[in-house]
Amino acid sequence: MKDKLTIIKVGGKIVEEPGSLDNLLRDFATIDGFKLLVHGGGRSATKLAGEMGVETRMVDGRRITDDAMLRIVTMVYGGLVNKTVVAGLQSLGLDAIGLTGADLNIIRSHKRPVKEIDYGWVGDVDEVNAGMIAGLLKIGAVPVIAPLTHDKSGHLLNTNADTMAGETAKAMAELFDVTLVYCFEKPGVLMDENDDSSVIPVIDRKSFSDLVASGVVNGGMIPKIENSLKAVDAGVSEVIITKADSIGDLSAGTHVVASM
Amino acid sequence: MKDKLTIIKVGGKIVEEPGSLDNLLRDFATIDGFKLLVHGGGRSATKLAGEMGVETRMVDGRRITDDAMLRIVTMVYGGLVNKTVVAGLQSLGLDAIGLTGADLNIIRSHKRPVKEIDYGWVGDVDEVNAGMIAGLLKIGAVPVIAPLTHDKSGHLLNTNADTMAGETAKAMAELFDVTLVYCFEKPGVLMDENDDSSVIPVIDRKSFSDLVASGVVNGGMIPKIENSLKAVDAGVSEVIITKADSIGDLSAGTHVVASM
Repeated sequence: MKDKLTIIKVGGKIVEEPGSLDNLLRDFATIDGFKLLVHGGGRSATKLAGEMGVETRMVDGRRITDDAMLRIVTMVYGGLVNKTVVAGLQSLGLDAIGLTGADLNIIRSHKRPVKEIDYGWVGDVDEVNAGMIAGLLKIGAVPVIAPLTHDKSGHLLNTNADTMAGETAKAMAELFDVTLVYCFEKPGVLMDENDDSSVIPVIDRKSFSDLVASGVVNGGMIPKIENSLKAVDAGVSEVIITKADSIGDLSAGTHVVASM
Repeated sequence: MKDKLTIIKVGGKIVEEPGSLDNLLRDFATIDGFKLLVHGGGRSATKLAGEMGVETRMVDGRRITDDAMLRIVTMVYGGLVNKTVVAGLQSLGLDAIGLTGADLNIIRSHKRPVKEIDYGWVGDVDEVNAGMIAGLLKIGAVPVIAPLTHDKSGHLLNTNADTMAGETAKAMAELFDVTLVYCFEKPGVLMDENDDSSVIPVIDRKSFSDLVASGVVNGGMIPKIENSLKAVDAGVSEVIITKADSIGDLSAGTHVVASM
């Protein structure tokens, strides 16, 4: 039987406010077994850019990353957010280690080719070094991964944190029984978007099609669940979409599974 | 017989200019045996502070680190400089891993007590986790250490890079035959400060006293050599003071040793 590994992905908003970060780290510390945190940091990057007079340009929610913006995200994601989380977890007795994809070459990517849009220094993941991450877990380390990768030719690349968490989960599923948790501003996927108590407890490919056909699931939630289904198809045990303040109790939220 | 470990400390100036950084990393890659890099980044921190309208205050060459400055050095040292070096070394085939003292709890410190001067969030080193660093070296990793530590209570602390390199060298001397290299703007300690060819090849405690008495060694060079002598007293095999572009040939420079 494989050891259990829980991968938590948290967005910028939660890790960027001291109060919510403290709660998150405390809840994260209570999770049993091997665990790993992937974080964002977009709001802090936009804030720093503003302080520096650098314009933030987004296309479809993705950040255009020119030289000036790469410098900013390297500082904010790899430095400020990552090391704040690491120091916080260390204070709770977890032996956290902050990593970008470049550190120990854990996640290699290539610069996204320019098609209609030039995203700049943005990476699409090629390979996750599951053996190296497993080695860190086995010595008791708790990896804290920032949304930056590298191309093995000396370039850092801004990389979507959801994608990094998903690719990491898929690669680690070879070696561990992986649960991937996407923290979200709502308590899960809702039947009625105005009613937080209407969480859909389980979604599989069949029910997903029905939910899309009926219009219950729409907009940005469609690719999120599609990516979750791809992860379970690739061997991840389940993907949980839940509120950040619920990671201490993973029975909550929406559980995306291979089949019910 | 202990394995050889070379610890290179480079200042901000070298790692902050792409041309000199490339040369440094190429030379560093040629060093045989186990190796580790400790870097600065003060110039970039001062530059970013300027861009953000934050005042840089220095006392005796030490940076006063209030909340705003801690945020800046966390971004610059832990993010920008550290990850740029890591990605560069990865492109040269070295399995670099960027670390602050908080990562894997490798270097713990305490906030410097306020006496005449309140340095703010500045750390004085308490303990280097030599076993953990040795573990990383033994799996083939090349640690790249940023001048930040933590107090194990969740605070990051700005920490002098020379001190971190020295304390790391002393702790690692239990397990390795350690050479510590301080890169310097001059080719070594000079008999005549206006003649770069007048490098003093070897200094021990006896000759150091003579050099201070005669005035050849003065000013900021005195504490530098004193710290180097303390390191060799604590078991470091030798401390080399040399120019950054000479790290490919460690026979150059001034070698501080226990006795000639």
